[in-house]
Amino acid sequence: MPDIFSESLDLHRRLRGKLETRGKIALSGRQELSLIYTPGVAAVSSAIGRDRSLARTLSIKGNSVAVVSDGSAILGLGDLGPEAAIPVMEGKAVLLKEFAGIDAFPICLSCRGVDEIVAAVKAIAPVFGGINLEDIAAPRCFEIERRLRAELDIPVMHDDQHGTATVVLAALINALKVKGLSVGEARLVVNGAGAAGTAVTKLLRRYGFGDITVCDSRGVIGPDRNELNPAKMELAALTNPRRLTGTLAAALRDADIFIGVSAAGVLNQEMIRMMRPQPIVLALANPTPEIMPDEARAAGALVVGTGRSDYPNQINNVLAFPGIFRGALDNGVRLIEPAMLTAAAERLAACVPAPTPEMILPDVFDRSVMPAVAAAFRPSEEEQSPSAIAVPAVSRSR
Amino acid sequence: MPDIFSESLDLHRRLRGKLETRGKIALSGRQELSLIYTPGVAAVSSAIGRDRSLARTLSIKGNSVAVVSDGSAILGLGDLGPEAAIPVMEGKAVLLKEFAGIDAFPICLSCRGVDEIVAAVKAIAPVFGGINLEDIAAPRCFEIERRLRAELDIPVMHDDQHGTATVVLAALINALKVKGLSVGEARLVVNGAGAAGTAVTKLLRRYGFGDITVCDSRGVIGPDRNELNPAKMELAALTNPRRLTGTLAAALRDADIFIGVSAAGVLNQEMIRMMRPQPIVLALANPTPEIMPDEARAAGALVVGTGRSDYPNQINNVLAFPGIFRGALDNGVRLIEPAMLTAAAERLAACVPAPTPEMILPDVFDRSVMPAVAAAFRPSEEEQSPSAIAVPAVSRSR
Repeated sequence: MPDIFSESLDLHRRLRGKLETRGKIALSGRQELSLIYTPGVAAVSSAIGRDRSLARTLSIKGNSVAVVSDGSAILGLGDLGPEAAIPVMEGKAVLLKEFAGIDAFPICLSCRGVDEIVAAVKAIAPVFGGINLEDIAAPRCFEIERRLRAELDIPVMHDDQHGTATVVLAALINALKVKGLSVGEARLVVNGAGAAGTAVTKLLRRYGFGDITVCDSRGVIGPDRNELNPAKMELAALTNPRRLTGTLAAALRDADIFIGVSAAGVLNQEMIRMMRPQPIVLALANPTPEIMPDEARAAGALVVGTGRSDYPNQINNVLAFPGIFRGALDNGVRLIEPAMLTAAAERLAACVPAPTPEMILPDVFDRSVMPAVAAAFRPSEEEQSPSAIAVPAVSRSR
Repeated sequence: MPDIFSESLDLHRRLRGKLETRGKIALSGRQELSLIYTPGVAAVSSAIGRDRSLARTLSIKGNSVAVVSDGSAILGLGDLGPEAAIPVMEGKAVLLKEFAGIDAFPICLSCRGVDEIVAAVKAIAPVFGGINLEDIAAPRCFEIERRLRAELDIPVMHDDQHGTATVVLAALINALKVKGLSVGEARLVVNGAGAAGTAVTKLLRRYGFGDITVCDSRGVIGPDRNELNPAKMELAALTNPRRLTGTLAAALRDADIFIGVSAAGVLNQEMIRMMRPQPIVLALANPTPEIMPDEARAAGALVVGTGRSDYPNQINNVLAFPGIFRGALDNGVRLIEPAMLTAAAERLAACVPAPTPEMILPDVFDRSVMPAVAAAFRPSEEEQSPSAIAVPAVSRSR
């Protein structure tokens, strides 16, 4: 791991940034100059001035996504400020281009208040076809997303929430197939009640998982907790049907599935042994998971997934967000709804027709994934699914 | 001209936007993925989190410029809204890459108030190394630029003002050489008191032109005008030493130089005949100049320049802004000062060692221009010129 870090620093120093902008055609003479700039461009601006929807076909807007962060929750590193977020957002922009052909640009905001962030994103929205929120701390990320969804006419998605939830759901669909367990029977524990844990829990509930218990760093979110913020109170109402209390270990007793979106090393072999036989363990803390895969398997886990590329079953958002934005842009989707995300998760899961304990998700470089996920956003998909027009749970949080 | 317009529309429709973003290296496998994204990027973010100045060497910030507009004064078309500005700002971004290797991105703002625009630009500033303001209506463009210059730690330039002023000054330096007239002797009339006219006037005053008369659509800006806004009152105080009043025609009597940054057709042959013999006429209204070059020459003009590429002496900002931003980025310039712009104008003029009536400026595709202009921003240049650290006239306007 230290090698990757110093190698990455060297690479960034050499490249001086990973992302570049450039013209789509060579500017070889006066003729091109008068076509792409003055005087020719006046005709294009006039046309959009008369009908602003033409910006989608005549400008970058039809294919552009802003990757927006305030730098308050960068990777697992915490609040390092907007400049420190640039390399992550640039990386995300590179992935959006590489996997989905999207022209994305990093927007790292110097402001921190919900109102200021909402105002800044609304101000810059005209040039973008979509907004990918990233690495913004909970709970304010919920309110920022809710307001931007309500106030903008382009799709807005906080990837730490919904990209993660989509990939986790896909992973579980196939892991349950491997295990031979139904959604209705499964008992889940989600450890972590930040952006990812909250969105994962809500999407799994919506998909039909009935017995989910959520833990945060203080233990089970349940009836005895009286210090919860509004987002966690909503989680408490949605989960924990057996009204458990206590520690993570207490919640894990007789559970089938552990989903960690928390911190390195918080799960141990003894806790896995308290679960039902052959549990599913998705230990997604980055870069060091809640438990190392070898340990988890030695303690009896049947399927183990992490965020890492050096173990089987990498649970990585890059399996979802390029296809989600490609699908949303191509189909003029104004609101990315939970039903679209569950459809995307099903299509992502279907990219592995015969899942095994060692392969519940496709390789991140499998080029069939992005179009499969994007296809979930075709209007016909939406029509098939009545819940697509329902107000998402996230939007009801306040 | 109609051909250019329909051809430009076709091209934009085909390209669906002229600008694209992309990664600087191919993403060929897991190794690259872990270097440019997680987990490797964590080391880069951590480094910038400890010292945010490293964003300039480790991220796109060191080479990026936002091309910012609110769409309130698009080309000569007026207020068409932010979406209509996208093709112009994209074009400008393409030119910044093509001529100066700068990674620029269009930012078209949905807000209109000075406070809102300043807040939005400050909010997105962390990812950019410079801000190019564009097509923002006067007089609020002056206040927006003044505040952003004061409140940001990166260079901010309204190109309609200062890019234009720089190229006009370069054109005049060479036109006066052709004519054999000194800066001190020349009598000038600037027609147009918007963003361009105001900045041209101030830069020429600073360069030593003593007898400048400015006209707006109501005529000479002078002692009899009692309805002037603060920006025009400042112009009145800086200009018109002979205390002229009346129309543009009155101001032109015995003038040597006409600079039009106004509207099509406002200058006629009779007015040129009222000027001193063999005048210099820079008729910069776009796409149709204040007078057509053939007419101006037939009326006795010695040197005629326009914004057009289909006549000699094209006065185009693209001769200035790429080198200005290249120079500012490469030399860590925090404030682009008037003395830097006059130095840039001198270097731009020097790109034509032996100017003639048909060639006072280099071709816009002359690749020696950008580095020549950028060289004006080297620290040694600044030290040679004591006025470089003075507060610019624009910044004192309120």
